Amino acid sequence: MKKAEYSERGPVPQDVIDIVDMTLPPPSAGQVLIEVLAAPINPSDVLTLTGQYGLLPPLPAVGGNEGVGRVVELGADVDANLSGRTVLLPVGVGTWRTHVIADAKGLVVLPDGLDVQQLAMLSINPPTASLMLSDFVALQPGDWVIQNAANSAVGSYLIGLAKLRGLNCVNVVRRESAVEAVRAAGGDIVLVDGDKLAKRVAEATGSAEIKLGIDAVGGAATDNLARCLAAGATLVNYGAMSGEPCQISPASFVFRDITLRGFWLSQWFRTATPQRRAEIFGEIGKFIATGKLRASVQATFPLREIKQAVAAAAAGERDGKVLLLPNA
Amino acid sequence: MKKAEYSERGPVPQDVIDIVDMTLPPPSAGQVLIEVLAAPINPSDVLTLTGQYGLLPPLPAVGGNEGVGRVVELGADVDANLSGRTVLLPVGVGTWRTHVIADAKGLVVLPDGLDVQQLAMLSINPPTASLMLSDFVALQPGDWVIQNAANSAVGSYLIGLAKLRGLNCVNVVRRESAVEAVRAAGGDIVLVDGDKLAKRVAEATGSAEIKLGIDAVGGAATDNLARCLAAGATLVNYGAMSGEPCQISPASFVFRDITLRGFWLSQWFRTATPQRRAEIFGEIGKFIATGKLRASVQATFPLREIKQAVAAAAAGERDGKVLLLPNA
Repeated sequence: MKKAEYSERGPVPQDVIDIVDMTLPPPSAGQVLIEVLAAPINPSDVLTLTGQYGLLPPLPAVGGNEGVGRVVELGADVDANLSGRTVLLPVGVGTWRTHVIADAKGLVVLPDGLDVQQLAMLSINPPTASLMLSDFVALQPGDWVIQNAANSAVGSYLIGLAKLRGLNCVNVVRRESAVEAVRAAGGDIVLVDGDKLAKRVAEATGSAEIKLGIDAVGGAATDNLARCLAAGATLVNYGAMSGEPCQISPASFVFRDITLRGFWLSQWFRTATPQRRAEIFGEIGKFIATGKLRASVQATFPLREIKQAVAAAAAGERDGKVLLLPNA
Repeated sequence: MKKAEYSERGPVPQDVIDIVDMTLPPPSAGQVLIEVLAAPINPSDVLTLTGQYGLLPPLPAVGGNEGVGRVVELGADVDANLSGRTVLLPVGVGTWRTHVIADAKGLVVLPDGLDVQQLAMLSINPPTASLMLSDFVALQPGDWVIQNAANSAVGSYLIGLAKLRGLNCVNVVRRESAVEAVRAAGGDIVLVDGDKLAKRVAEATGSAEIKLGIDAVGGAATDNLARCLAAGATLVNYGAMSGEPCQISPASFVFRDITLRGFWLSQWFRTATPQRRAEIFGEIGKFIATGKLRASVQATFPLREIKQAVAAAAAGERDGKVLLLPNA
């Protein structure tokens, strides 16, 4: 049994993490032993290694916040039907490891026969996309939204969810080479960020009133998006892929009444009711199970190649998520 | 009779404006002729000359948006009691002139014997300060607010209104030489913007939870203010004295749930009910009449020195408002 652990944080994320042997006791009463099948490396995981994330676990810590596994051993007093079932790993357990022990109660059991890699990405990026589309502006079918970093995993879920909800979505990327992947993910309008973005967006949409903007880039890209929005619209930031602070013209706030907000899934998890969680994950689970929502996978790595995997996830210009397959 | 008029816009505001002779007909039925006593040069007036404001009048246009005057001639069917009274100039008539004709109906008549220069600044800066304090966050007595550009006219009205409402106010300025004037205006806590502002604010306030930030500067100053705010707070921008776009760290939005909004008085005028206007101006008028609210005047100019006056208003590091006294 192994885990990918870090004892310090630093600017080069692959430098601080390493594989460590571990031994787990047999599961206690009410617990199960889970073999980890797949766990993604999300941008928030990289920021946790570099120390730039909003919530940093005490050190040493095991990387990873979501994933999927198979129940391989049952403690006393556990329903025998759980044996061999595919389950979501509890969020936040440190999922970059070969095995984990978890309470049987509360485990989300998944149907058999589904794409394990897609299920491994269910807990973080899809609810992020879903909640940003629903919790800031009351959008109606036919309404318009614009996002940048449209080739990211959140971006591709957002394209899918917007379509399922009857919304129109303008997709912005930072390089020409990302356009094709966004079209393949279902993006109807795809534009490269830069000069006169608002004018190009107006041409592509017939000057549609865009009520919601979604920014994962920061820097000048935030202002570029703000200029595309209708007066009174809301711009939601959830990331800083440029590494720069958001820039936005006072004229956008003052003369056009744009509101800038932020979204953080961890905060939502802390405050959402169980009913609301069930509603969000029920919808997402159904769409992923039926193939209506999916994200691209750029590469998979065994756990022993954790340094290469983290370096690949931290690099710019990815064309999909990096996944660990700890028991492949 | 003269007016200060501009026929084009340009980067150097004093270059585009000049004095022009004018002739006014006698006031028609229901109208009065007003001699202009005092009219300020606000930052929004300067931005209108340079073309950077959100609402630009058709050219040629007379500068100025507020001021105070004396009724010197009555048209037919006008109440004879209006003769000789001091009145607010209607907002937006182009107040940088010696005389103006206005409808008698709707004129706001002011008590005699008050400070005409203070009354001339009643219509724009005080409601801006008042509405920013009331319309974004529901503050209770004892709550904290922080503002930058605290040595501006809006800043000094905000200090006064915060005190009258029982709020605590942290005042930020951009230079040491502005500190004393803010203390003289009633500012209890005055700090110079820059390194570790949030730490210094926490020390000065006993780590108070600051629920509202008010930014007139933009650039890095916006982020400095954001870092001083409590989680969930709102930051309102109403100006760009730095000439730079607002910068704000995604970490502030995302991890600390800061909302960035804008305030524009022109928009408020377009949508406020007559009752709400009466309420706001009633409160402000009372405070100005009793000397509880006042702003500093740096210099006064006759109308013929309009170029020097505009240049003085457009310059940085002012210690008070620049006023025109067209009939002095």
